[in-house]
Amino acid sequence: MERFSLSTLDAWLLQEVLAVTGQPPIRYVAQCGAQALPADGAYLATVRFHSRNALLRLILDPDTGFGDGFAEGEITVEGDLVGALAATFRAMNLRRRRGWLSGLVSSGLAALQPRDLRASSRNARHHYDRGEDFYSHWLDRQMLYTCAYYPVPDLTLEEAQIAKMDHVCRKLQLRPGERVVEAGCGWGALALFMARHHGVEVKAFNVSREQVRYAQWRAREEGLERKVEFIEDDYRNIRGSFDAFVSVGMLEHVGPEHYADLGRVIQNAIGRRGRGLLHFIGRSHAEPLSTWIRERIFPAAYPPTVGESARVLEYADYAILDVENLRPHYEKTLMEWLSRFEAALPAMREAESEDFLRAWRLYLAGSVAGFRMSALQLFQVTFAGQDYTDIPWTREHLYTQRAIDLQTSTRSKESWMAAMS
Amino acid sequence: MERFSLSTLDAWLLQEVLAVTGQPPIRYVAQCGAQALPADGAYLATVRFHSRNALLRLILDPDTGFGDGFAEGEITVEGDLVGALAATFRAMNLRRRRGWLSGLVSSGLAALQPRDLRASSRNARHHYDRGEDFYSHWLDRQMLYTCAYYPVPDLTLEEAQIAKMDHVCRKLQLRPGERVVEAGCGWGALALFMARHHGVEVKAFNVSREQVRYAQWRAREEGLERKVEFIEDDYRNIRGSFDAFVSVGMLEHVGPEHYADLGRVIQNAIGRRGRGLLHFIGRSHAEPLSTWIRERIFPAAYPPTVGESARVLEYADYAILDVENLRPHYEKTLMEWLSRFEAALPAMREAESEDFLRAWRLYLAGSVAGFRMSALQLFQVTFAGQDYTDIPWTREHLYTQRAIDLQTSTRSKESWMAAMS
Repeated sequence: MERFSLSTLDAWLLQEVLAVTGQPPIRYVAQCGAQALPADGAYLATVRFHSRNALLRLILDPDTGFGDGFAEGEITVEGDLVGALAATFRAMNLRRRRGWLSGLVSSGLAALQPRDLRASSRNARHHYDRGEDFYSHWLDRQMLYTCAYYPVPDLTLEEAQIAKMDHVCRKLQLRPGERVVEAGCGWGALALFMARHHGVEVKAFNVSREQVRYAQWRAREEGLERKVEFIEDDYRNIRGSFDAFVSVGMLEHVGPEHYADLGRVIQNAIGRRGRGLLHFIGRSHAEPLSTWIRERIFPAAYPPTVGESARVLEYADYAILDVENLRPHYEKTLMEWLSRFEAALPAMREAESEDFLRAWRLYLAGSVAGFRMSALQLFQVTFAGQDYTDIPWTREHLYTQRAIDLQTSTRSKESWMAAMS
Repeated sequence: MERFSLSTLDAWLLQEVLAVTGQPPIRYVAQCGAQALPADGAYLATVRFHSRNALLRLILDPDTGFGDGFAEGEITVEGDLVGALAATFRAMNLRRRRGWLSGLVSSGLAALQPRDLRASSRNARHHYDRGEDFYSHWLDRQMLYTCAYYPVPDLTLEEAQIAKMDHVCRKLQLRPGERVVEAGCGWGALALFMARHHGVEVKAFNVSREQVRYAQWRAREEGLERKVEFIEDDYRNIRGSFDAFVSVGMLEHVGPEHYADLGRVIQNAIGRRGRGLLHFIGRSHAEPLSTWIRERIFPAAYPPTVGESARVLEYADYAILDVENLRPHYEKTLMEWLSRFEAALPAMREAESEDFLRAWRLYLAGSVAGFRMSALQLFQVTFAGQDYTDIPWTREHLYTQRAIDLQTSTRSKESWMAAMS
């Protein structure tokens, strides 16, 4: 009798999960063998619960129950992980229910988390100080951990990251001898690219000690240490006067309550004559990341809407010149990272725990699904002060000149790759 | 004695004007001959007060004193009117003083003005019902009263307005047989262009009876009355299901308190699968238009920031795909309108009063100056619902295809012009 009733409980719980997630095309299977199928019986993937505990935890704590169960190996997905997550996003979104898996938890908590200088450093270090060994298994050769740009879809990730840096530099219209400040410079690839290919001087800030050390080593290796200065410090401590401001992948970690601070930092750095670019993960409506992502992967991250991010620039009257949504490019970038990550699992097992690797795989797959389903966006915002005099007449130079560069020997794909190797 | 003391008063008042406007390179001259010059004595233009009353009114009522005095001929400007206004914008902005001439009056009143359906109609009619006779003197042949687009700077206004419609259609990626709804269609040029060149069906809404009648007449003349329906009604009364939503030059008249209404209208019209474009005059920081413009020229108009306008789209989770700032194009368009307007003054005097023509000339010149000095922006925002499946891979198609079109006989400049004549 007991076995029968617990199995009935499992079946009921599985039906609950199916209902709460809006009947996605997913088969849910409990440890006892009980299963729940969508109404038409067709499914893309099977989600298997290896303990009753995992199933109960999902019901009781939907925000983190799926992610934690997956990380611990108590929940597995058979079939296309990205497809299963994307289908569930969609079903839940249509049902207007928010919760686990959807990455769409409706709570204002993320925006309220304190981000003083020490906490910011701690939050960013949690993610980025893991060291280049781990990331080098699945990022491109230059370790760019932000959305790539594919002028044509068949580029390699290596090429697309170079094309991204080139796209950013074209938008900034850099000229030799200019001074650029970069806020949140990762492992330093963009700062070095700007100095090498555009002849500018760069001061690049980052709170991750590991990343700054790596970037400084690269600058010395490439003989660029007199052109590029990497500084281990918070963006709020930027000092000096510059022609351009650039930040790729930092705004997500700034927090809306500090957007005016960032606006003031930009104003002090480039004044009325300067221009700049913000590249960040965003949203089409205001909503924090899922609790699981915020608690386990990216502490205190918040992807803003275009409207929220505009507060940074309105603070000091910078005119937005251009906003480009590169969402399809981030879906492709993340797919590439996920494939490389999965291929590198055997090698990574030497240094990392299974729980960690499963959690990270879910984070990458969930991010692909989020961009695919329009739950996440990737914005590049170009802006200029009132006295910036070189606003381009159209945006044609972002496209026509690129075609020439990719086809001539002066800066071919091959020469780019050679320069980077 | 009395003449002497009043002249002293004039001189003091002129010095006040010079100080309040931040010492622009302008010479101010009172009726009595007293004058005030900037510190270095150099000036671009002379502002002459033909009565003490005009000078006093400017001091006592800075928001409307200049515009009204200019309209009545009590204040004249000798020299480059646009240059004088631009220099004064700049001086006042640097001084962070707001008031007359600057178009930057810091008051939240505009955002609070009620815009019920009847008031909206009244406001729009005030400006647009003036009739095509007046506008035909200085607009292009097709009567487009919104920013043109110059893919290359040496196009005529006629060509640039066609290029603008083409640019909008490329951004919308229209396909034959699709259904498009246009909110605020002016004299109908874009709706007819979309139907003629892209084979779509269009429902176009406008509250200006005069404009709708003109557009309906044009549709019949061009044999497009079965493809394009012009409807005299408010955007809030849009009904039906469409593939795309487009609005060029209406958002300025919607008012921030109705952005959610507009979001709901868009949602009902195009759902999750549709896409659309908003084209509007905007700001780099939140601030109403000058009182004079709002009271005398555009009742209840409010140009939003990108951040404010984003509320329209965030309401129903539309993803912003692209924002383009066409500010230099509107400066050029307005310069062209102003030249044509000035050339047509003798002809327009038959139907319009001098006061009206002077006010309108000031409005056009002030708008040129506003765009030149970055006090005004022109945004085109392209957006799509979550289920829109044709997001272009890059924006290259906006540029490379155009170059081909302009150079081949299939849709050359000449064939465009012939089709429009």
